[in-house]
Amino acid sequence: MRLTLLGSGNAGGVPLYGCRCAACERARRDPRFIRRPATALVEGGGTRLLIDAGLVDLVARFEAGSLNAILLTHFHVDHVQGLFPLRWGQVEAVPVWSPPDPEGCADLYKHPGILDFHHPEPFVPLTIGALTVTAVPLRHSKMTYGYCLQTGSTKLAYLTDTVGLPPATRDFLQGWHPDGIVLDCCHPPQEEPPRNHNDVCTALESADAIGANRVIITHISHELDLWLMEGKEEFPSHIHVGHDGLVLSAIRRDMGVSA
Amino acid sequence: MRLTLLGSGNAGGVPLYGCRCAACERARRDPRFIRRPATALVEGGGTRLLIDAGLVDLVARFEAGSLNAILLTHFHVDHVQGLFPLRWGQVEAVPVWSPPDPEGCADLYKHPGILDFHHPEPFVPLTIGALTVTAVPLRHSKMTYGYCLQTGSTKLAYLTDTVGLPPATRDFLQGWHPDGIVLDCCHPPQEEPPRNHNDVCTALESADAIGANRVIITHISHELDLWLMEGKEEFPSHIHVGHDGLVLSAIRRDMGVSA
Ligand SMILES: [Mn+2]
Ligand SMILES: [Mn+2]
Ligand SMILES: [Mn+2]
Ligand SMILES: [Mn+2]
Ligand SMILES: [Zn+2]
Ligand SMILES: [Zn+2]
Repeated sequence: MRLTLLGSGNAGGVPLYGCRCAACERARRDPRFIRRPATALVEGGGTRLLIDAGLVDLVARFEAGSLNAILLTHFHVDHVQGLFPLRWGQVEAVPVWSPPDPEGCADLYKHPGILDFHHPEPFVPLTIGALTVTAVPLRHSKMTYGYCLQTGSTKLAYLTDTVGLPPATRDFLQGWHPDGIVLDCCHPPQEEPPRNHNDVCTALESADAIGANRVIITHISHELDLWLMEGKEEFPSHIHVGHDGLVLSAIRRDMGVSA
Repeated sequence: MRLTLLGSGNAGGVPLYGCRCAACERARRDPRFIRRPATALVEGGGTRLLIDAGLVDLVARFEAGSLNAILLTHFHVDHVQGLFPLRWGQVEAVPVWSPPDPEGCADLYKHPGILDFHHPEPFVPLTIGALTVTAVPLRHSKMTYGYCLQTGSTKLAYLTDTVGLPPATRDFLQGWHPDGIVLDCCHPPQEEPPRNHNDVCTALESADAIGANRVIITHISHELDLWLMEGKEEFPSHIHVGHDGLVLSAIRRDMGVSA
């Protein structure tokens, strides 16, 4: 199984419109530092899933028929906006798994086009091609699911947007023993406990509680990039800062991270 | 005054995801035939306005502070989606004029960020820098305004999304005598009268009723492109098929169209 982080940014992204901070200026000079909206590609045993659809150019990146399903963590715009044009496609329906949020986003439910919405039962494994997918509730300002993905004995979890973890999800993940996790870490350390997204402190707490071999942080703001550039603290060696294009690949229980 | 049509496509755009028709394949081969979502730039006397914000890369195209205001015709996603990332910018507030649609789109009203929403009074001229702007109600599935723009004696009207024109708007435009109009023409001629967007027949009727010297059709679907490629009918010489990048420039009462 292989997860490619296509979008590692928060809703405003990096560079943020009009911002002149060192992190935003660096991303303007060098496109390797651009952070696009939340999107990840998961491939395993011939099955290809997208988790979240924040990239606005999904239509150009993924040929029609090349995705087996799309998993949505939640219906905030920065996680679904790539679906707005894609839904009008002339192509077979695409299964879209999401929390049963009655609101959805804009008119996606009213005019789903080729999107065939389904809602997984939390903690109940679901088979999508060669992958086993289990939805786990997260803690965010909108109904949100993380997704646990398994092929054979390798296990990855994608956990954003969230601040901390609900107790039932933390207990599930402790028992499930993921090899790698992709985790919300939007903010540098905050004085007040953050309310909708992890800061560095709550992200490290969650990572410790889960005990994964590899942790990729994502949903990164320009403020966190700036804090990382200042380099006052170092992360433990199993924590990696996500970037657009990062690949997390798992062969048996070895988990490698590469650019 | 100068209007640049940045996006001449309907909601699905051209090429449409997964479509193998001759119009969509032509746009894949030759990017000049790509039709992006509804967006126009209007420049006059040093004032720069955007009408609609369907382009998803507004943040990259328009430097912070370079737009005096944004006029929204309505809150369908294909007209507002460029605002989703832009609103989080670190820059002065941007006035956004729109119909007083209580729904808005997704969470734009709840989290406006730098967007400063205002609602113009229909038929009452409004001054935005060097431009005089008058909102006129259109006929669509969502509350929609067209915009009449004037500098000195030159007059342009932007009229999408609409099917036909409400009587009060038609009367206003007949008295106002625009030099040029940009007009919804989404569909080839239909057997049944269309309900939300002009087909070629209702577009020509509206253009005749208004009597402008230059008419640019926009909000074009791949079906209309295909019909145009078949070339069975010709438009009158004052009707021009819009394309992304088309410039409509007005100097006194001469109205020129160029690529
Ligand atoms: Mn988010
Ligand atoms: Mn969110
Ligand atoms: Mn439209
Ligand atoms: Mn519309
Ligand atoms: Zn910044
Ligand atoms: Zn087509």
